[in-house]
Amino acid sequence: MTVTIGELAQSLDARAWGDLDIQVTGAGEPATTLPDSGQIALAMAPKYAEALRPGCIAILAEGMDPEAYAVKAAIFAPRPRLVMAGLTRAFDQGPDIDTGIHPTAVIDPSATIGENAAIAPFVVIGRCAVIGANARIGSHASIGRNARIGSDAVIHSGVRIGHDVVIGDRVFIQPNAVLGGDGFSFVTPEESGIEEIRRTLGERENITTQHWTRIHSLGTVQLGDDVEIGANATIDRGTIRATRVGSGSKIDNLVMLGHNVVVGEDCLLCSQVGIAGSSTVGNRVVLAGKVGVSDNITIGDDVIAGGATKIFTRVPAGRVILGNPAVKMETQLEIQKATRRLPRFAKQLSDLQETVTRLLEKG
Amino acid sequence: MTVTIGELAQSLDARAWGDLDIQVTGAGEPATTLPDSGQIALAMAPKYAEALRPGCIAILAEGMDPEAYAVKAAIFAPRPRLVMAGLTRAFDQGPDIDTGIHPTAVIDPSATIGENAAIAPFVVIGRCAVIGANARIGSHASIGRNARIGSDAVIHSGVRIGHDVVIGDRVFIQPNAVLGGDGFSFVTPEESGIEEIRRTLGERENITTQHWTRIHSLGTVQLGDDVEIGANATIDRGTIRATRVGSGSKIDNLVMLGHNVVVGEDCLLCSQVGIAGSSTVGNRVVLAGKVGVSDNITIGDDVIAGGATKIFTRVPAGRVILGNPAVKMETQLEIQKATRRLPRFAKQLSDLQETVTRLLEKG
Amino acid sequence: MTVTIGELAQSLDARAWGDLDIQVTGAGEPATTLPDSGQIALAMAPKYAEALRPGCIAILAEGMDPEAYAVKAAIFAPRPRLVMAGLTRAFDQGPDIDTGIHPTAVIDPSATIGENAAIAPFVVIGRCAVIGANARIGSHASIGRNARIGSDAVIHSGVRIGHDVVIGDRVFIQPNAVLGGDGFSFVTPEESGIEEIRRTLGERENITTQHWTRIHSLGTVQLGDDVEIGANATIDRGTIRATRVGSGSKIDNLVMLGHNVVVGEDCLLCSQVGIAGSSTVGNRVVLAGKVGVSDNITIGDDVIAGGATKIFTRVPAGRVILGNPAVKMETQLEIQKATRRLPRFAKQLSDLQETVTRLLEKG
Repeated sequence: MTVTIGELAQSLDARAWGDLDIQVTGAGEPATTLPDSGQIALAMAPKYAEALRPGCIAILAEGMDPEAYAVKAAIFAPRPRLVMAGLTRAFDQGPDIDTGIHPTAVIDPSATIGENAAIAPFVVIGRCAVIGANARIGSHASIGRNARIGSDAVIHSGVRIGHDVVIGDRVFIQPNAVLGGDGFSFVTPEESGIEEIRRTLGERENITTQHWTRIHSLGTVQLGDDVEIGANATIDRGTIRATRVGSGSKIDNLVMLGHNVVVGEDCLLCSQVGIAGSSTVGNRVVLAGKVGVSDNITIGDDVIAGGATKIFTRVPAGRVILGNPAVKMETQLEIQKATRRLPRFAKQLSDLQETVTRLLEKG
Repeated sequence: MTVTIGELAQSLDARAWGDLDIQVTGAGEPATTLPDSGQIALAMAPKYAEALRPGCIAILAEGMDPEAYAVKAAIFAPRPRLVMAGLTRAFDQGPDIDTGIHPTAVIDPSATIGENAAIAPFVVIGRCAVIGANARIGSHASIGRNARIGSDAVIHSGVRIGHDVVIGDRVFIQPNAVLGGDGFSFVTPEESGIEEIRRTLGERENITTQHWTRIHSLGTVQLGDDVEIGANATIDRGTIRATRVGSGSKIDNLVMLGHNVVVGEDCLLCSQVGIAGSSTVGNRVVLAGKVGVSDNITIGDDVIAGGATKIFTRVPAGRVILGNPAVKMETQLEIQKATRRLPRFAKQLSDLQETVTRLLEKG
Repeated sequence: MTVTIGELAQSLDARAWGDLDIQVTGAGEPATTLPDSGQIALAMAPKYAEALRPGCIAILAEGMDPEAYAVKAAIFAPRPRLVMAGLTRAFDQGPDIDTGIHPTAVIDPSATIGENAAIAPFVVIGRCAVIGANARIGSHASIGRNARIGSDAVIHSGVRIGHDVVIGDRVFIQPNAVLGGDGFSFVTPEESGIEEIRRTLGERENITTQHWTRIHSLGTVQLGDDVEIGANATIDRGTIRATRVGSGSKIDNLVMLGHNVVVGEDCLLCSQVGIAGSSTVGNRVVLAGKVGVSDNITIGDDVIAGGATKIFTRVPAGRVILGNPAVKMETQLEIQKATRRLPRFAKQLSDLQETVTRLLEKG
């Protein structure tokens, strides 16, 4: 793709400076972007802009002086990451999935393939499945019977969409993600050890040999519109109802959502997050990498959990939490500070005990 | 599938009430189950039963009054989750894998395919592999040379079964799981930094540049009967002997078992558990989500580890543990209580020191 | 493969004893290795050697007496794990991927396939991709447009290599790993909750409804030579530049590297490690299982992080760290010791307060 500096600025809703007719074909980092290369250097902070070569074109932050860096043209980013979104969209060539239906694909005759949908080699599409208009299905993906994929969805290579799963419009699913595996749900004939310790908080009286009986998963998985699912993430089907992810929510690589989990809208679940069965997450919740959520609990709207937080109990809306077990972030930061001094406390306490003992003896 | 209330009660070994001839075709949640829909509502606690619509059919807990909810018929569940197991099994249509051998499958002529086995599109089966009777192999799965799959096994789409891997009867493997990848085992020519700090517990004298040499994996993976493996889980092959999972054990999504690991029978390993190389887990052990186990340690029978527990040393049989590092659950709960008060302790200790100093001065 | 004891010792650069002409066809554990089986028993410590059967052949540690175990021949291992590397390499039959190009593979005519490369069934290779000499590509793998795979690389079944990804020579990639999924990078029109709390460390003033806008990934992924990537691991492409892994680094199953991450040479990243976007890891760094690294931080050369360490801030070169949040390993071990005594401290502190109060009253 080629645009001029002027056109690019307009599409980014940003102000431009210098020679607005220079052609732009891509973006690069300041240190590796050459003059007259067609690349626009991303230099949205002075520390990055230092590496700019004279004669380049660049994106600068508002308030930076283009003449100081001897660039030929510049676009000013009022909110740099937002400009990054527009810029990267402008130069993205789109997913590596050719248009048309590849002859090797195995598509059940009862399936419905939307207009302009692209189906890559070795895709399997089951009975009565529906693929939306302009959807693109990468190689080796499998779409189960009765599954529904929205329009403009991008399903990358090796993704598994189980039977009856429903996926909204404009959804991106990264390679090898699995939607609609069976829930991890088992029961023993008599009370199991887990049930016993949930009751006793640690004590066990009767340890007996029991086998696990499978609770089958009759429910499905439903994703809203504009959802993203990361590579090798897994979302299990519900037992009776569906496991659900609301519109606009983004889920990173290697995340696990257990059976019956409900995630609200516009959430951000970072890599390696795990949410156990039947828990509910509100809207606009952010869980940083490696956060864990126990089963059957509720996390309110707008909760933010820092990296590796472990959540064992319900979290009220709007709370910012951190730690294992999760507490308010500011409390956790105090705990951490005190914990680092803990070995010293131990020493101080023991010294003080001695002093007091001596005082007592004297007294 | 259609059964009558009476037949369903009998198959669940449960008591029924009301019109036993009503036909049941599926199950649903109380709030969304309509009268005369063929769906039986799961209302095994009063709080769920409140949402029941008059004229429905329902499963209730023992002791609940069907007339109070105006249902037409009811089945009583003495142990609700056990009834769920029977009920969901009754209405499960089975895995989405058609019977017969799909013409696109690439099956080595020396492989043995059991009676009634189902092989989906694009499956690859290697030399001398053996597929048991009634086994179902999902699309895009690959079964390596000499691998053996038991009868009635369900291997879902995209699963990788490496060469020589042995899998028992009635095993379920969820999509994109990998059994028989190479172990993560490397060695440096001289002592490595890891070996040094295991010896010194933290001190490092000599930091040298060394490359890692690969220890190849000649062992395999063996699963007993009735094992389940979750989506995107990985079980590495052993170095010389096999990595093993005992009969009846259930392993959730994104779990990692390292090379040479031995897991006993009837264990439950929840999502994102990781067990490092050469560790041994006893029978009936439950590891909750995100539990980590160091290499070369032993976990006794009947151990239960709470969510995100990190186990660095051997755990005796029957122990219930929690925390990082793992301690007895009751100890951990005390530690957590004290930790939350730690910032306050710091203040109290410092106040006390001042007081005692003043006392000393006065004395 | 068959070699004599003498030849094997020579290839391992080790000393041999006894009948050097005995044929060796494989290796086993002492307890299960029979005399005259062709198997050599691995008995590199007295505790293992006790199980040796008389008449066997064995690998012993230097200093052990072969006659005490009545073996017919022995090889002495000066560094046992290094001998394991040589021995397992000697008997490894190589990956289960047949030579030649399978007729079902879909290879774009513009792709270049190196001499002796092996391409398994159902592989898809995109436009202008380059596969090195002797590379082996397992079944169901997909290689995107313009991707480059080095010579002697082994890409196992179901691996996803995205467009433009560059992979060095002699790289091993285990099944279902994903290289080149899109980065997890989003922005809101106005300041988001995450940005707000990074500024305020916990306080939130304005909670507003905002949607996430996608920052597209124009960068790629680059792996050096002799890299290993584990099963179901995921490495996301960079935003503008490449996500990179240096030569000789080994990455285990289910590891996540975010967009723009740079990992140096000869690192060891164990299972379930996660490194968030734009962080940089030096050379010879070892991160044990389940270690987490925040975004945009730097980890120096030769850092070693123990199991489940969570790293939120930069780590200087050579440091050995442990815990959440990470501190020096020796500090963490002291903290753990003090933490276990914390409930007792609480009691002691409260007793001491009482004593001092009484002293004060008396005074």
